[in-house]
Amino acid sequence: MGLGPGSPDCLTGEVRDALSQAQVVIGYKAYVELAASLLEGKEVHASGMTRELDRAGQAMDLALAGRRVVLVSSGDPGVYGMAAVVLELAAARGLELGGQAGQLDLRVLPGVPAAMAAAALLGAPLAHDFACISLSDRLTPWELIERRLDLAAQADLVLVIYNPKSKGRAWQLGRALEIIAVHRGPSTPVGVVGKARREGQRVTVTDLARAEGVPVDMQTILVVGNSQSFVHAGRMATPRGYLGKYGHPQPDDKA
Amino acid sequence: MGLGPGSPDCLTGEVRDALSQAQVVIGYKAYVELAASLLEGKEVHASGMTRELDRAGQAMDLALAGRRVVLVSSGDPGVYGMAAVVLELAAARGLELGGQAGQLDLRVLPGVPAAMAAAALLGAPLAHDFACISLSDRLTPWELIERRLDLAAQADLVLVIYNPKSKGRAWQLGRALEIIAVHRGPSTPVGVVGKARREGQRVTVTDLARAEGVPVDMQTILVVGNSQSFVHAGRMATPRGYLGKYGHPQPDDKA
Repeated sequence: MGLGPGSPDCLTGEVRDALSQAQVVIGYKAYVELAASLLEGKEVHASGMTRELDRAGQAMDLALAGRRVVLVSSGDPGVYGMAAVVLELAAARGLELGGQAGQLDLRVLPGVPAAMAAAALLGAPLAHDFACISLSDRLTPWELIERRLDLAAQADLVLVIYNPKSKGRAWQLGRALEIIAVHRGPSTPVGVVGKARREGQRVTVTDLARAEGVPVDMQTILVVGNSQSFVHAGRMATPRGYLGKYGHPQPDDKA
Repeated sequence: MGLGPGSPDCLTGEVRDALSQAQVVIGYKAYVELAASLLEGKEVHASGMTRELDRAGQAMDLALAGRRVVLVSSGDPGVYGMAAVVLELAAARGLELGGQAGQLDLRVLPGVPAAMAAAALLGAPLAHDFACISLSDRLTPWELIERRLDLAAQADLVLVIYNPKSKGRAWQLGRALEIIAVHRGPSTPVGVVGKARREGQRVTVTDLARAEGVPVDMQTILVVGNSQSFVHAGRMATPRGYLGKYGHPQPDDKA
């Protein structure tokens, strides 16, 4: 399940219900803490980074033993989240999915992704075609990440950049912005959102020439506009094109 | 605000609260109907397609007149939604954003996007880098849509296709799948989700060779896997790569 960006009022009703009915809650420490107020009386297993496979395996084993288990991700569990790790492991184990004995009764409950929470704080930068690309080269070759950035920038897609930086990864964001700048002008709007809907939230609207100067960390999302994106009154938006097509509403054009 | 995919249990708490506090609710007819159970006692303005600018203008005018107005989108209001239309119009009118007299006090409340609701039903196809591309050429030149499909397919991004078909747009999806097939094999997994989390929901997992045969409409989302995506037990997933990196959990590798 996806806990959304962090603020409890961004949880969906079904995620709240599933949490309240769960017997066991498993997740990355920082995410389990986001849901702390909803976990009273439950068996909680919180673990660290790189323990993703262990968490998925533990959730699977406990569910197969008959417990009602939730595995939590922040944001949406399908977007760089744990849902795929569960399916990778189920496939590796040849485990059938369903409600019968010996099967895993798996449901994926969506949440508000971090990208959309960040975009809402910036304005509406994702209103036209966009790509989400993670700069983490822990599990993905850096050459492939560069290629994706280059092609997505050529395609004039709005770019959402996840994981711009972490301990031990300092230069990737600068290189990524260089690649994008081959195809986009220095005044292209860029939004930088740190800790969206969490304590310490920071929202900055800047441009491609200055984006590298904005402090970022692992919880920061960057949104690089396409060639049509604009900034108005401190907000960033990408037009859908209605004004270009229809112009201002005419008196005889009202519904 | 974003109502999420359709099912009331996919609303976030803050959207539910803002709806209950609203005096006026404005939106596309079909979306206003999704929220019907929450609208009692409110002034409701529902209108049709192509009335997007009118709706944004009306919401703005009523808000500037001191009413508490919500403008609803399905899914997330920033993803092909109304938030950008409001900002386009605010910019065209030179309207300042803020809480002072003569300013528009604008907040964008995110929701679960249709793409993530569809992905959750399919499994976890969006667990690695992906692009969202709309096939609607009502406001976007078809040549640009083709170029984006081609480059995103080259980039081995998972592809989320919005608006595959509508009245008067029948051939676009077939052409889009042809472009993608230049770069991806015929057995590439494809998920097709109609009316995610609404009455009449249909979930199909197929492959690129057979995707065109699956019935689609304007409310259908397609997800085309990348070169690593797989199908297991009827679900579609894109690996994050943990199994490749760490292999199966070892006894001495537990948290």
